[in-house]
Amino acid sequence: MLKVVLLGTGGMMPLPDRALASAMLEANGRRLLIDCGEGTQVRIRACGMGFKAIDGVLITHFHGDHVSGLPGLLMSMGNQGREAPLLIAGPPGLVHVVNSLRVIAPELPFEIMFNEIDPASPPPFACAGLEIAPFALRHGMPCLGYRITLNRPGKFLPEQARANGVPLRLWSVLQKQPSAEWEGVNYTREMVLTPPRRGIRVTYATDTRPTDSLLSAAEGCDLLIAEAMFGDPDKLERARESGHMMMTEAARIARDAGAERLWFTHYSPAMPEPGLWLDAARAIFPAAEPGEDGMQIDLPYVEE
Amino acid sequence: MLKVVLLGTGGMMPLPDRALASAMLEANGRRLLIDCGEGTQVRIRACGMGFKAIDGVLITHFHGDHVSGLPGLLMSMGNQGREAPLLIAGPPGLVHVVNSLRVIAPELPFEIMFNEIDPASPPPFACAGLEIAPFALRHGMPCLGYRITLNRPGKFLPEQARANGVPLRLWSVLQKQPSAEWEGVNYTREMVLTPPRRGIRVTYATDTRPTDSLLSAAEGCDLLIAEAMFGDPDKLERARESGHMMMTEAARIARDAGAERLWFTHYSPAMPEPGLWLDAARAIFPAAEPGEDGMQIDLPYVEE
Repeated sequence: MLKVVLLGTGGMMPLPDRALASAMLEANGRRLLIDCGEGTQVRIRACGMGFKAIDGVLITHFHGDHVSGLPGLLMSMGNQGREAPLLIAGPPGLVHVVNSLRVIAPELPFEIMFNEIDPASPPPFACAGLEIAPFALRHGMPCLGYRITLNRPGKFLPEQARANGVPLRLWSVLQKQPSAEWEGVNYTREMVLTPPRRGIRVTYATDTRPTDSLLSAAEGCDLLIAEAMFGDPDKLERARESGHMMMTEAARIARDAGAERLWFTHYSPAMPEPGLWLDAARAIFPAAEPGEDGMQIDLPYVEE
Repeated sequence: MLKVVLLGTGGMMPLPDRALASAMLEANGRRLLIDCGEGTQVRIRACGMGFKAIDGVLITHFHGDHVSGLPGLLMSMGNQGREAPLLIAGPPGLVHVVNSLRVIAPELPFEIMFNEIDPASPPPFACAGLEIAPFALRHGMPCLGYRITLNRPGKFLPEQARANGVPLRLWSVLQKQPSAEWEGVNYTREMVLTPPRRGIRVTYATDTRPTDSLLSAAEGCDLLIAEAMFGDPDKLERARESGHMMMTEAARIARDAGAERLWFTHYSPAMPEPGLWLDAARAIFPAAEPGEDGMQIDLPYVEE
């Protein structure tokens, strides 16, 4: 099961009733944070979560509303005595930005491991037990989306283990590790398990115009969380100029990618009621939902 | 009249029900902000105030909880199209800290005027129509308190103007400017006004141990806003080590300085109910009030 919590859904500036856009993913007790604007640490607490289980923070880009809360979060983690290293991943310039912001958090009792990701050919990596595939977005500055997968191993089949002559004592071992040796013979996971099953896939994309990379990263995902800065069709030109998406554009991505669910986030501060513009988006993708601060879902494994 | 709004009352880290300590002062439609932690801009909005009338920001020191919200506030001011310059005052290092934080707010449509204040001999200055007298505190890093005065001119006395031979046409002019000339003769404000009357004085002090400088800056003030990180008498040693005050220590300052009112602020996150420790403080200074987020007062001129 993969839990997804929308900590905030606002773009540009935090409002009293709408925090800056960010999300927490949780699987097997480990957490991964996406973006950390001013107030995100408070939203984490307000949503009943602590900081200790956060293994990594993925930054989409360096506009202030996506990263302004990072020094505060680092300080609070430090004040709580964190010792475990924290991974921070983001576009090129990450180390400079984080270290500049750390002018007010110079001493931390834990290590930061940086992953500066080249948007041109971003390699996947692992954090919090999740597989993370970054992809380039189009926003007027280097910006990354993230496709996050909770992988699911194959199913254990005793008859397959027996047919492959795997000793009984290795049956459980090979469900936990890729290979094991017994009496000079090497046995592999594939001898006891079916091929890996479909995992759970979440694609997160702020801030961006519609792109092929997003379409491809959203393909067949269980949940697409996509920015929808504007709803009003009159704002299309403004969306194009500022590198943002309309709700209907995000809906088309979800439809064309065959996504299961679509949540909008990162609303313009000038759009107090995103629900007003929902009909046009649902005409394209009926399962579209306007994200709200604190909205969450437990995504289950799906049998194919 | 001088309005004072406690935007937040928390120390160290923002909590869902307690924002980081900061205060807004307002007189004649102009505003002055003291400290700007993560979330302060949201608290300004939540308290029904905008950013446009803010002429200056006073920073007490560079621990993150007092300054982490500055880049976000600057961005939001910029997004609203501010063009008027903004004064930012604080201890030495101010320019470096603010410019480092501005890595995420590099372009602003308004000018920042810095006032790096030497704690050893801090000169008074003016902002938002208020007189600001900084003073050194003791907190393990350079830290400033601020005594803020809304000055009140003398009273206009027609009989005095007449006795000094001031022409009638200059009576109202000299209530607005220090001097004026008519038919080759120079007339001064003092010819029509009594000496300046008692103004309204607010003293703000976070973070600090009790100091003589604070006692002196709080002398006869209408309102002392003082940090009270701890209430529990068992925490005295901790307060000494960390450069903070007990409620009772702040109460003694208020009593010895002859302050009219005392509001506590900047509570430890480990102290959810500051009111629990109020009795001991009120035994020393009966008018002590535990500050709360959003608490405000309109301080009137007092006739002497």
